[in-house]
Parts: sequence; C-alpha cells; structure tokens
Amino acid sequence: MWADLLPVGRDAATGGYHRFAWTPPELECRAWFLDEARRRALAVEHDPNGNMIAWWRPDGTEGREAVLTGSHLDSVPGGGAFDGPLGVVSAFAAVDLLRRRGVTPARPIGIGVFVEEEGARFGVACLGSRLLAGAIDPERARGLTDAEGRTFAEVMHAAGLDPQAIGPDEGLLARIGCYVELHVEQGRALHEPVGVASAIVPHGRWRFDFAGEGNHAGTTLLTDRRDPMLPFAGMVLAAREAAQRNGTVATVGKVRVEPGGVNAIASAVTAWLDARGPSDADVRRTVAEIDAAARAAAVAHRVGVDLAEESYSAVVDFDHALRDRLGKALGGVPVLPTGAGHDAGVLSARIPAAMLFVRNPTGISHAPAESAETGDCLAGVEALATVLADLAGGYGS
Amino acid sequence: MWADLLPVGRDAATGGYHRFAWTPPELECRAWFLDEARRRALAVEHDPNGNMIAWWRPDGTEGREAVLTGSHLDSVPGGGAFDGPLGVVSAFAAVDLLRRRGVTPARPIGIGVFVEEEGARFGVACLGSRLLAGAIDPERARGLTDAEGRTFAEVMHAAGLDPQAIGPDEGLLARIGCYVELHVEQGRALHEPVGVASAIVPHGRWRFDFAGEGNHAGTTLLTDRRDPMLPFAGMVLAAREAAQRNGTVATVGKVRVEPGGVNAIASAVTAWLDARGPSDADVRRTVAEIDAAARAAAVAHRVGVDLAEESYSAVVDFDHALRDRLGKALGGVPVLPTGAGHDAGVLSARIPAAMLFVRNPTGISHAPAESAETGDCLAGVEALATVLADLAGGYGS
Repeated sequence: MWADLLPVGRDAATGGYHRFAWTPPELECRAWFLDEARRRALAVEHDPNGNMIAWWRPDGTEGREAVLTGSHLDSVPGGGAFDGPLGVVSAFAAVDLLRRRGVTPARPIGIGVFVEEEGARFGVACLGSRLLAGAIDPERARGLTDAEGRTFAEVMHAAGLDPQAIGPDEGLLARIGCYVELHVEQGRALHEPVGVASAIVPHGRWRFDFAGEGNHAGTTLLTDRRDPMLPFAGMVLAAREAAQRNGTVATVGKVRVEPGGVNAIASAVTAWLDARGPSDADVRRTVAEIDAAARAAAVAHRVGVDLAEESYSAVVDFDHALRDRLGKALGGVPVLPTGAGHDAGVLSARIPAAMLFVRNPTGISHAPAESAETGDCLAGVEALATVLADLAGGYGS
Repeated sequence: MWADLLPVGRDAATGGYHRFAWTPPELECRAWFLDEARRRALAVEHDPNGNMIAWWRPDGTEGREAVLTGSHLDSVPGGGAFDGPLGVVSAFAAVDLLRRRGVTPARPIGIGVFVEEEGARFGVACLGSRLLAGAIDPERARGLTDAEGRTFAEVMHAAGLDPQAIGPDEGLLARIGCYVELHVEQGRALHEPVGVASAIVPHGRWRFDFAGEGNHAGTTLLTDRRDPMLPFAGMVLAAREAAQRNGTVATVGKVRVEPGGVNAIASAVTAWLDARGPSDADVRRTVAEIDAAARAAAVAHRVGVDLAEESYSAVVDFDHALRDRLGKALGGVPVLPTGAGHDAGVLSARIPAAMLFVRNPTGISHAPAESAETGDCLAGVEALATVLADLAGGYGS
C-alpha cells in the first residue's frame, strides 16, 4: 500500500514531493485512496469541498455517531513522504488489523482525506477542513488564487466539482462523534514510538508586499533607487530577531520578485512570513515587531509596504476527555504539544478531536529527509487500531 | 513599423516585455525583422550563432568593408519597449531616409540583430555577439541552461539551428569595417536628444548559492535551523553598503528559493548579483567585500555558500577615431560613458565600434516605464542616417 504511493509526485532529483491540490500527482493519490477503499468494500462519501471519507459501516451501526480518522494526501513543495499520507495509510492498516482480529465496531469508522491541508496551492492551510467546519467564508475560498492566478473555484470546476456548493456540511458533521488523526511528529519532541497531542500552538501566515520601482541595475544611481529587495532583506533579518526576543519561531520560506531580471532593480517583492509561538500574544507581538522593522526599512528606501494576514489559527487545546481516553487506552504514552497546524485542530472547533504522533527521529519535516522508522509506524498502526476499537466500542454514546 | 512591434511579448497587466531568446515573442520579433528586410529588398545573412544581418549592398560596394548598425530584439523580464528595438527600428528608418534622399552608399550597410543580448534566458549577457567575436568558449555556451534546465544547445537545435556550428565567424568579421549601435540612454545622463558613447564601465554578474537544510517552519527550534534565507538577506544589505563605500552600484534583482513553501524553512537560496563601477578595481573590491559579508553570515547560520562569476566585462573604451568622427559628423553632441553593457562593447574587441544614445527623460530602463520622446527618437534616426552616410562614404578605406 505504502509502496504504491511512494513514487507519486516525487522529484527524481531531490526526492521531494510536489502534491498540490488537484494537480496530477494529488489526483493520482486520490485515485489510490479510492482503490484502497474499494478493495476493502468501504463506501466513499464526497463532501461538497473536495474532502473524501471511506466508510466502514458494519450492520447495526446505522444512526450511531461515527469515529473518524484520516489525514491528508497533499504536500508542501519538496515535502516528505510521511506528512499526511502516513495518517491515511495507517488508517487503512488499522481497519485491516481490526478485521483480522475479528473486531466489529459498534459505530461507523470513517477514513477521511482532507484537501489542501498544506495550503501549498491556494495559500490557506487546512482549506478543506476549514470549509467543512465553516471556519472560512466560502466566497473568500472561491476567490483564492494559485501561483498561476487560477482561482479555487476555477480549479474545482475543472476537477468536475461545483464551487457554488462549497461550505460547511452540517449533516456530515452531525454524524461524526469524534476525529482522531495520526501524523508523523515534526520537531524531534517525541522520544517514544507513539504519543498523544495536547495542543497546537497558535500560528499564522502573513504576506508582505514591497512595492518599489523597476529600473536598470547598471545605470541607476544608488540615490535614485527605490529597490524593494533591501527592505525585504531587512524584514527577513528582523523576523529572526523578533522570534528570538519573543520565544517564538518566524520563517520566510517563500519569496516572489518582480520582474526577476539579473540586470534589473526589482519593482516589487512579495514575501510570506510564517510565525508561531506558545501564546497568541507572543505571536501577535512577534509579527507586530517584524512589521515595524519592515516599515522603517521601507521608508528609508522610499518603498511601499503592505502587510496582509492570510490565515491565523489561535491556540488549539484538544478535547481533554478524548485525549485522556486515548492516553488510557494506550497505557500512558507521552502527551505533547505541536508547532504544526493540522485538520484536527480546525475540526476541534466543531467536534471532539485528538491526534496520535509517530516518532520522527531527526525532527526534519516538510523536506525530503523527513522520516520515521518502520517499527514506529507499525506501533502507530497498532495504537490507532486500539484507539478506534476503544472509541467505536462506545465512546460518547 | 514601431506599431507592429509594440504589442509583441507585452504583459497586458504590467506593460512589461518578456522577449527571451527563441521564445514565441522573440521569434515573432525575428519574423518582423525578416519582413522589414524583405520589404526593403535587404538580403538577410544568418551567422552560425543565431545573429542576423540585413544587408543593403548597392552595386559597386562588393568587396568593400561594410558599415554595420543594429541592436537586439530580446528583453529583460518585464522590460521596456525601447531597450534594443529602438536601435533596429532606427536602423531601418535611417536606411529609408538615406534612400529617400537619394544617397547611395559606397560600402555595404548592414542592420544586425544580436541574440540574447540581455542574457535573460541563459544568464550570459551579449551571448550572440560574444560567440560571433570569439569572446566565449562555444562549449561553455552550449552548456548554459535556462530556468527550465534546457541547454542553449537544445534550444538552438529546437529552433532549427546547429549548436555544433556556433563560435566566431571570422569571414563575417573581416567583412565589417565598423559597428555603430543606436540605443536608448539608460541613466538620465543625457540632456540633449542624441549623444555619443565614450566608454562602457566594467560590469559583471555573480551567482551566490546558499545551501541550508529544509525543515518545518513551525516545529524546528531556532537553534536547530540552517536557514539559507538569513545569510542571503545579509548579502543583499551588504551589497548596498559595499557599493556605497566603493562608489559603485550593486544590485540583487533575481532570487530562487528552494523549495519555496510558506511553512517550510528553505533548503537553498540562489541569488544573482550585478555589480558595476568606474574601474575594474572598484568592481572587484565591491564584490570581494560582499562575498566576505555573505561568508561570515553563512558561517553564523551554519549554511554553505558558493560564489560563481557568470560573466565579467572589463572597461570598454570605444575606438577614439570612430567616436571623434561621429562627434564631428553630428556637430558636437555630448560624449558620455554608460553603466550598461552592449553588443557594441563586446564587438569593440574585434572591430572599431561606437554608440549613439537617444535621451531617456526619466532614466528608467529595464522596466515598463522606460521611455523616449518621439522627437528625440526622430533625432536619433536623423543622426544615425548622418553617421551611416558619412561612414559608408569612405570610412576606413
């Protein structure tokens, strides 16, 4: 199962994955999901937002609140193999394990795949779960554009879906009792094979637009220049300093330079800031300090600057009762917070949600070197099967 | 004539031109050139490097050294309408003017178009004239790659040309007595309609490769990071400071970030530096200081850094006799140096070369706002016709 998915969307040179929502590699991952569901006689439900759920509904589970697990299949640019797919593969494997053991759940068990979790194509992370949970205005979502300027609505339409139908699916949400997402841990914070998430720290994305004046790199006097590259560079350095001061993290990993000629002063630079920290106040203070530094540098270089918040997720404290139940079922595994956003964090606003983490020996993630030991992955499947059996046996009834 | 060329390769949103060597807009410009030549019964000669010359060879000019004029039709990304095409259009217009006035030159007059002058596709400026003049190793040229990784050899082959045949064309060079290129001035340095170039200041392009470690933007501790964006930003600021200290100009206008995800620490940043100054020593010192600053910042962030010189053009002092002859023919127009590189500078190593500049009222170039007044352009055509008549009347015989 894992072997089928490994080559899809992988760059031969770097080993990094490029699976962006509704691009051919991501569509191939979706086809793989439908095949795996069909092989297990799991009926697939499509919500209006491009999310999919494969349902295991033994007789007698009709009308009972379901236990949902799953994750996502898309990737960041040049991402690793585990972030997302591990949760989906482990969910199928856990269902196989339960069936082999003759367990028949008393509630439906669903395996969900949420679209555009990374936000790598349209800029808003967890877009699929946000739409399902009503955490983003459908009109705003329809207008989000990818790097080629195509809107989310256009891309959905091209994929054969109706962009006018997107938004919260209350009927589906009402049928789900809880959501448990298994995911590779991403920060070298877990020293046992499996752990349970306590919280997701607050995090967000901001876009800085620096507007200068394009000109010739050879003939324009330094004093005549309005070069947006300079305040952009100042912002990058200010971001690291502000993060150090505030005990947060701040990263600039994406930049667009217009027009991008070697012998032309840039006319505009757009840069994206990712900032996260222990509390909302810490993150807000970090971004305010970076913005102040960017503005001062922009003024000094006679460049315009604009800051836009593309997304913000406040701290998520996962449902305590569900978290404790997972801990008990697994016999006292570590409980730890994470600096990474997840669909489980978004869905936690509407339904009890929890997460299982699988150890990441290097802490590397969102990069080709992301890894997890086979033994730890199998422990993750075992833990997920245990949790599903426990929850589908009667949780929340 | 100008109207035909104006819409080709122009971005509707920004007004900037994108005419890179052998891309559809540049091929359309070449087709336009062939049409204009055919309309005037000028025979077009193709050199082995993708350069073209339209010849006006009245009877009796056989075997006599020719006067070559012309310029280029490619553009920087998002470039202006005048940089390059003005010289080609003015050359056709000057030929028309001479014919209308009944002037029959005693020497052949050629209108040349040199390929990849901006180096926007393959990274080496004046690539066509360098190959013709033997100023670049053909093997190196064949291996140059564009942003998609296609080599110059592949692209030439796809355009129906033989990449094995590229290199100096001694037969052609021997037939040319001198080269006069008309070009829009690019630095607000010319306060009359037309001027003559004295020199091209030394200039070059360098590439910085910063190699860090890709990782998750949320879960990686600041102290665990090897983020190449930080020393890159330090290099950008150091470039401006070094230029100020040394009385030079230094510009970073092109950047590539891998993998370029908002929520991923970059694994690598590649940045291009353009530096120019009054003397070779000034430019060398500027680049050495920027390199030292980049290395110190890279060490501090545990990031690798590599500096490569992509091209360097030493100071070009245009042929004094030719320059003085132009000045005399035009009755004492301003004589001025330029910070911009040109094919005339490359060819000056092999044949006497000179340049005419047309006033640029704003000094803006390599940007959509680049402009020249119609009256000044017509004065440029008049001046070029005067110069061609003078030179083709007996120069260098």
